Amino acid sequence: MNENENLKMPPGLLGKKGSRRDFLRSTAVSALAGTALSACSTDESGAQSVSRDHEDRSGGSMAPNPAPVSPTAAADAMDKMHEAGIKAFPAKTAGKGNQPLEPRMVKGVKVYDLTAKRIRWETAPGQTVEAWAYNDQVPGPQIRVREGDRVRVTLKNELTESTSIHFHGLELPNDQDGVPFVTQPPIKPGQSYTYEFTVPNSGSHMYHSHHNAATQVGLGLLGAFIVEPKTPLPIEKADVDYTLVLNDGAHGYTFNGKSFPATEPIVAAKGQKVRIRFMNEGMMIHPMHLHGMHMTVIAKDGWDQPAPWKCDTLNIAPGERWDVIVNCDKPGTWAFHCHILPHAESDHGMFGMVTALVVK
Amino acid sequence: MNENENLKMPPGLLGKKGSRRDFLRSTAVSALAGTALSACSTDESGAQSVSRDHEDRSGGSMAPNPAPVSPTAAADAMDKMHEAGIKAFPAKTAGKGNQPLEPRMVKGVKVYDLTAKRIRWETAPGQTVEAWAYNDQVPGPQIRVREGDRVRVTLKNELTESTSIHFHGLELPNDQDGVPFVTQPPIKPGQSYTYEFTVPNSGSHMYHSHHNAATQVGLGLLGAFIVEPKTPLPIEKADVDYTLVLNDGAHGYTFNGKSFPATEPIVAAKGQKVRIRFMNEGMMIHPMHLHGMHMTVIAKDGWDQPAPWKCDTLNIAPGERWDVIVNCDKPGTWAFHCHILPHAESDHGMFGMVTALVVK
Amino acid sequence: MNENENLKMPPGLLGKKGSRRDFLRSTAVSALAGTALSACSTDESGAQSVSRDHEDRSGGSMAPNPAPVSPTAAADAMDKMHEAGIKAFPAKTAGKGNQPLEPRMVKGVKVYDLTAKRIRWETAPGQTVEAWAYNDQVPGPQIRVREGDRVRVTLKNELTESTSIHFHGLELPNDQDGVPFVTQPPIKPGQSYTYEFTVPNSGSHMYHSHHNAATQVGLGLLGAFIVEPKTPLPIEKADVDYTLVLNDGAHGYTFNGKSFPATEPIVAAKGQKVRIRFMNEGMMIHPMHLHGMHMTVIAKDGWDQPAPWKCDTLNIAPGERWDVIVNCDKPGTWAFHCHILPHAESDHGMFGMVTALVVK
Repeated sequence: MNENENLKMPPGLLGKKGSRRDFLRSTAVSALAGTALSACSTDESGAQSVSRDHEDRSGGSMAPNPAPVSPTAAADAMDKMHEAGIKAFPAKTAGKGNQPLEPRMVKGVKVYDLTAKRIRWETAPGQTVEAWAYNDQVPGPQIRVREGDRVRVTLKNELTESTSIHFHGLELPNDQDGVPFVTQPPIKPGQSYTYEFTVPNSGSHMYHSHHNAATQVGLGLLGAFIVEPKTPLPIEKADVDYTLVLNDGAHGYTFNGKSFPATEPIVAAKGQKVRIRFMNEGMMIHPMHLHGMHMTVIAKDGWDQPAPWKCDTLNIAPGERWDVIVNCDKPGTWAFHCHILPHAESDHGMFGMVTALVVK
Repeated sequence: MNENENLKMPPGLLGKKGSRRDFLRSTAVSALAGTALSACSTDESGAQSVSRDHEDRSGGSMAPNPAPVSPTAAADAMDKMHEAGIKAFPAKTAGKGNQPLEPRMVKGVKVYDLTAKRIRWETAPGQTVEAWAYNDQVPGPQIRVREGDRVRVTLKNELTESTSIHFHGLELPNDQDGVPFVTQPPIKPGQSYTYEFTVPNSGSHMYHSHHNAATQVGLGLLGAFIVEPKTPLPIEKADVDYTLVLNDGAHGYTFNGKSFPATEPIVAAKGQKVRIRFMNEGMMIHPMHLHGMHMTVIAKDGWDQPAPWKCDTLNIAPGERWDVIVNCDKPGTWAFHCHILPHAESDHGMFGMVTALVVK
Repeated sequence: MNENENLKMPPGLLGKKGSRRDFLRSTAVSALAGTALSACSTDESGAQSVSRDHEDRSGGSMAPNPAPVSPTAAADAMDKMHEAGIKAFPAKTAGKGNQPLEPRMVKGVKVYDLTAKRIRWETAPGQTVEAWAYNDQVPGPQIRVREGDRVRVTLKNELTESTSIHFHGLELPNDQDGVPFVTQPPIKPGQSYTYEFTVPNSGSHMYHSHHNAATQVGLGLLGAFIVEPKTPLPIEKADVDYTLVLNDGAHGYTFNGKSFPATEPIVAAKGQKVRIRFMNEGMMIHPMHLHGMHMTVIAKDGWDQPAPWKCDTLNIAPGERWDVIVNCDKPGTWAFHCHILPHAESDHGMFGMVTALVVK
């Protein structure tokens, strides 16, 4: 991927708020922006534990010349960029991926209609990229069904390339597996193709292109396919059920198609249980680190772990899905990011794979 | 590694079958090629669920000029390359690695003779690379013994560099550990060196060079060293026992020394249990994704997992070995590949780390 | 990172011992160097199992010209470089990181004083780099406390950039979490800042910068923060407790801030139990491979594993901590290295992420 694109922070982050268009954004999330992250500022008057005890020597031996930009001024300039990014979070952008797709019911079958086509997609304020998307969303709309459901998915291909859908993790009959020339013909530009099956196994799964897939998935032809079990285990009952799709292709480092500060915070009340379903659709590992609270790992690729285990940093490889539970017992805004630091921060501030878990 | 080499698909994949030399290849596997993967073709007449419902608008707004190459023609050209690769699978190439090496029995000792030398190695039809190989194979011949066996391995070094063998995973006495200048002198060009030990621990292990190893292992000086336990657990009894060595060095992305379409399918009858022993001899992780059925993970580095667990995507890091069981209850040809998609597919079609599990 | 720096082996490794400065180094470790690794040499007279049985054909078909540098001479030259690196181990360098930091006790509070500043740091003999360090050490001094302790950490920032400390893995109140503009203001050049908390959870944790962190952590602003549990489990009682911080940033591939041959061996007597606390502060995975003995994995990120499990190669991702136990039942010097081979060996010999477990 072109990392340079990530390193260029959009002008909006530096405070030019007037130039932003008025994008659609849920008011709940916008309201949060004003409260969750404004407690701290560069004005340290309220920070009782800070003491500028070396005022006279700052920039001493390392900056011997009284140059126009003093180390302190350079540090301040860097901090301003960092602050602007954080203050902008969660930033408004056009488009929101991974939105629930309601099926049409046809004689007891849940019918989902998908259209693949090329769109423009805003990953962060002012950063717009070419995307190949299902139903104009990156990730594509979330399909959520129940074990045993009869499901029909029709894909209309409005791309200029052939494509197909592989239901990654579902144990389908071979002819529904979505691999061109192995289990089906490719779906040509202009064609539609229908998959139909009874959902065999529960868990956090995915659907994505399996044709020229390094390109097509990288450009956005992917989505979450979540199957609720007939009988959930007690441990998997959660107050908040959040799906977090990681990607690192042509769109940069993204969570659900957005880069910080346009990523979406996960919000819970104190005492609530949050279930996070990690899904890696990229080409690199991403060890996700949660601040302040641990994660209890309950499932891998939709299969229950034989015994849940705890961590604060969970390594997620391409194609993997991991389900975790967080008991939100600690109020605050908790950073939540990939711990490959160049995926999360540059000298211009946080970007890419950063969001927050907000416990109210 | 030079990724560009992988991206150049050999002419054989584009249908110039006449220009291929007649390579040795097991007839069983060749016969499979004709049946397993020929059910689908670009001729969609038999695909009842395909409808070209947008014939008149294909290539509409995105290709406004009636250019000589229409989007549909471009898509067809791409699909032809994809189809050719799949139709060629499993493609014939010269040489086959990881073949069982029968020991000579000398007074109760199993004696294995290895010769390291430089050879030419065909990774995919028409793609021939320099390899440094044990007994002219990449991976080297498979050594399979039983816990408690007395084993002697003699290495003749016909390379122009010194070398050594480290038995990766075996808990040997220190003087058999194979690290030049630490546990033995290097084995100079022209020299032979003998290792001898009683096999201490069972499991899926490896042998490989431990001298200038980033180069020597990358070029092929590696092989599987499998130790059967005195008393196998019920869960590890399998109908098919398959070793899959992953590599990503100078030879490109390979399974057992071959790149798709020259990789070998794993074949089982419906109802059989397949044990797959993954071994990563490369420099990168490879999350292996199996379509259609899950894998039950039973061992790590030769050690039983305390409780088996299930997945469809297993992340395998360099030096690791993972043993899994697949219950082959679903007939069909199931794609089986690294889910770092650029290791498995380009716009020219599948290549590299792709094979299939064929359940008949 | 700049891999080329790693590939340049310092002159000291090639035997120019006279040019070395007299660095501080513990005599215990220096004494080891003379005994542990000198059993083998290029003089194979003592190696009963080596026979130069192809003296007359060495360099045969692959080196048809009687060139001034014969293959054997080239192999000898390479081996000499390999031998020199191993003979130099453990090589003396200036500075030692991860040293225990004794707290000042102030009214029942353990007080730790840290100063962040720019220093020069020697990673291997003759290889000196710019580092940003806590208390002139890379990694910073090891902080070791007990669950329930009251702890105060004061950071004096003598850098030219703002900074902060995040206590990675500790479940602290939000205002002690160390994320500038989210939980505190940045600590400006010349300022001091104080964190204070009651230690909530035990385990192998870390402290590091959370401001411009891709740069600052890469340059060395990191350290181990180890919390002993109130009631240790029987399995975690060990004779040797060793912390191994992996890094791969601006300083090259390092263990505790040093590259082979300047890495520190882990030393134990036969029969002892060694606990190793792996911490990855880098940007890449590092699958750590131990020769000769297996590791029993007991904790992840400070949390007990539900059931310990065994391996010889443990994949460690950025931000992760893994605790393992090694039962040292096999005497000898055992190689212990990252199994991404280009992180551990070049044609000039071992370098970077290599050390040894020495069982006496």
